[in-house]
Amino acid sequence: MAANGKAESPMYDYACDAVAEAPQKGVLNPPPRLLCGPGPGNAHPRVLSAMSLPEIGHLDPAFLSMMEDIKEMLRYVWQTNNAFTVPVSGTGSAAMEACVANLVEKGDKMLVGCNGYFGPRLIDMGDRYGAECIEMKKPWGEVFSYDEIKAALEEHKPKILGMVHAETSTGACQPLEGIGELCHEHDCLLIADCVTSISGVPCHLDKWGVDAAYAGTQKCLSCPPGVSPLTFSQRAMDKLMARPDKVKNWYLDMKMVASYLVGSGGGARSYHHTAPISMCYGIREALSICCEEGLEARWKRHREVAEFFWVELEKIGLECHVSKDYRLPSLTTVKVPEGVDSKKLTKLLLEKYQMEIGNGLGDLAGKVWRIGLMGYNSRFDVAMTVVAALKDGLEQQGKLKMKV
Amino acid sequence: MAANGKAESPMYDYACDAVAEAPQKGVLNPPPRLLCGPGPGNAHPRVLSAMSLPEIGHLDPAFLSMMEDIKEMLRYVWQTNNAFTVPVSGTGSAAMEACVANLVEKGDKMLVGCNGYFGPRLIDMGDRYGAECIEMKKPWGEVFSYDEIKAALEEHKPKILGMVHAETSTGACQPLEGIGELCHEHDCLLIADCVTSISGVPCHLDKWGVDAAYAGTQKCLSCPPGVSPLTFSQRAMDKLMARPDKVKNWYLDMKMVASYLVGSGGGARSYHHTAPISMCYGIREALSICCEEGLEARWKRHREVAEFFWVELEKIGLECHVSKDYRLPSLTTVKVPEGVDSKKLTKLLLEKYQMEIGNGLGDLAGKVWRIGLMGYNSRFDVAMTVVAALKDGLEQQGKLKMKV
Repeated sequence: MAANGKAESPMYDYACDAVAEAPQKGVLNPPPRLLCGPGPGNAHPRVLSAMSLPEIGHLDPAFLSMMEDIKEMLRYVWQTNNAFTVPVSGTGSAAMEACVANLVEKGDKMLVGCNGYFGPRLIDMGDRYGAECIEMKKPWGEVFSYDEIKAALEEHKPKILGMVHAETSTGACQPLEGIGELCHEHDCLLIADCVTSISGVPCHLDKWGVDAAYAGTQKCLSCPPGVSPLTFSQRAMDKLMARPDKVKNWYLDMKMVASYLVGSGGGARSYHHTAPISMCYGIREALSICCEEGLEARWKRHREVAEFFWVELEKIGLECHVSKDYRLPSLTTVKVPEGVDSKKLTKLLLEKYQMEIGNGLGDLAGKVWRIGLMGYNSRFDVAMTVVAALKDGLEQQGKLKMKV
Repeated sequence: MAANGKAESPMYDYACDAVAEAPQKGVLNPPPRLLCGPGPGNAHPRVLSAMSLPEIGHLDPAFLSMMEDIKEMLRYVWQTNNAFTVPVSGTGSAAMEACVANLVEKGDKMLVGCNGYFGPRLIDMGDRYGAECIEMKKPWGEVFSYDEIKAALEEHKPKILGMVHAETSTGACQPLEGIGELCHEHDCLLIADCVTSISGVPCHLDKWGVDAAYAGTQKCLSCPPGVSPLTFSQRAMDKLMARPDKVKNWYLDMKMVASYLVGSGGGARSYHHTAPISMCYGIREALSICCEEGLEARWKRHREVAEFFWVELEKIGLECHVSKDYRLPSLTTVKVPEGVDSKKLTKLLLEKYQMEIGNGLGDLAGKVWRIGLMGYNSRFDVAMTVVAALKDGLEQQGKLKMKV
């Protein structure tokens, strides 16, 4: 500081006293993993290539026009005509929190289907935004019937129902047909977690009457995490726009994001935050790939590969945790056989075969492995390779029991 | 729905009724922009290249080890020994909100230096988290003196002081030497916005006693936006860990992020959210480049290029808005001469020369252009090119007044 007590310009202080040495970390050289866990899966090479294109500014007309393309393709992939269908500038949990932060008002009753890890996460978020949360419970790996949901709505009369369409922790797929209609009879909004279903499992948001859905890119879209799909129905937008208070989250305030991404009345777009430009290139390419393949073909591919995988698992004596009626094709939970050390096997796969599969989480810790065949990785060669590695893993623990 | 009222498995409904046609958007072909606005600047080619490397999982030992490298290099770049120094999974505003959400408790007094666009944003965030916010005001482009800050601290006795080190909206650099010490005498935490200063302008967080700092990657680090540096001092961590309530933001809850990124007591890391893997590759490479160049050389380069730029601007009759004593080398605000249509000029630069410079924001709208020479773009050739384009822009409006 100068003698007069006025701080000098910091532009002239070059002395690196606190940390004198610059660390030298060499070349980044990630191992060549085959990612068959609960996500991320391997990104499509075209997506990685798109992400390395030179940047443009987030207010550039070319960027805003690309955003329109993203929004249009996202509507197709989710089968919705919702005007507000956008990529959120964070990973899947950010889009999840965007639903809660924007749609929950203090004191709102929020009913949540809890049959895995991600229902309770919705409750945790709901708590933070002042909701009165109610758990609707089922064992991990099961799903709720239409009648169970109907009864719970009648009993609790919530403002919001949160359901996990595709439970990444259990591999169960929650049927949602007719649920939106039920909710709307009770003046309730339906939020759906589509993180592990988007583009890999039929998602009919408009047909099902879903009011808010969020997803991740790193599962069936085969784009690295960093941006996440979100959509609000007009009903959801109406609740948001009628709020008398500010949303209690600045970054995820969708009133403000809407004025940037959608423009106020088709007019000027106001700056909110800097969008993750390269990630937007990534999701743009990932969605293009879905549109080229076509949704129906893509959904069928996921199912065919999954059914092949399930048959192959059976041949080496492994069983699935979830009933086939509700089993996700994108993510399979495989029971750890009696006497097998589950973590020892996943470690072997990672270290010997460069292959990542997931361990069980929460109630299923130690009981299942979680194996994702998603998007780019939903292929017969990948399924076959995973089975071969599992076979070796079981053999090394002396637990391989082939079925003939 | 089936006759028994039970929803059928959605795996079998392939009919794309709501949006039948898959949009076909062709190849992504962003225009070749030279990005010299307030950010993003052009990413370093090595960073884009790193981002296209194959992904690994966010719980992979190789990923966690890369995270340690990122944290170590970030400490060097910010000249701090703070253990909690991490990349946040969102763009700069997310790291900004992380400071507010985690460090502000309901009812805390928060004093904020408002001499540009980003001070009021801190206030907006503070409001949402229940702070009692107090503005300390100065005209846009000026900075606060040590004595002014001292007097305000004595008057208001806040729990938190928020200062913008590098105001992206004005181009002013706020001296922070001695300010942390002042704050600590008053049992107050110092938060610093380093979005436009990190790695381009001397930042001595430990020497200045900064308790929490946030930054963006898309400025002087020359990494695309999508992940953002954040650091908390032990003092800040103590306040966070002593909170009796949950942080009112799930995604940015740094107690939970710490248990993933730092591990609880060196023990197991618990899963919080999926990190943006490719963006982490990007910041890792960007920080490596800083470490190879060395901070002192990098800071000096920014200053030398800026001083050259300022001299060249003068030659074509343009003046800077901020006094040279406090002028950021990374971002220059250039006064729009009398009678010049500022937006017409930026439009010409974008359309004819593929060059982005920024318009004025808030109080400076229409009065200045904002020109960034940051990181990879802090080069004499870029500075010369921008001046040549400005010269043509002025000439086309008949307003070029060369100084001899």
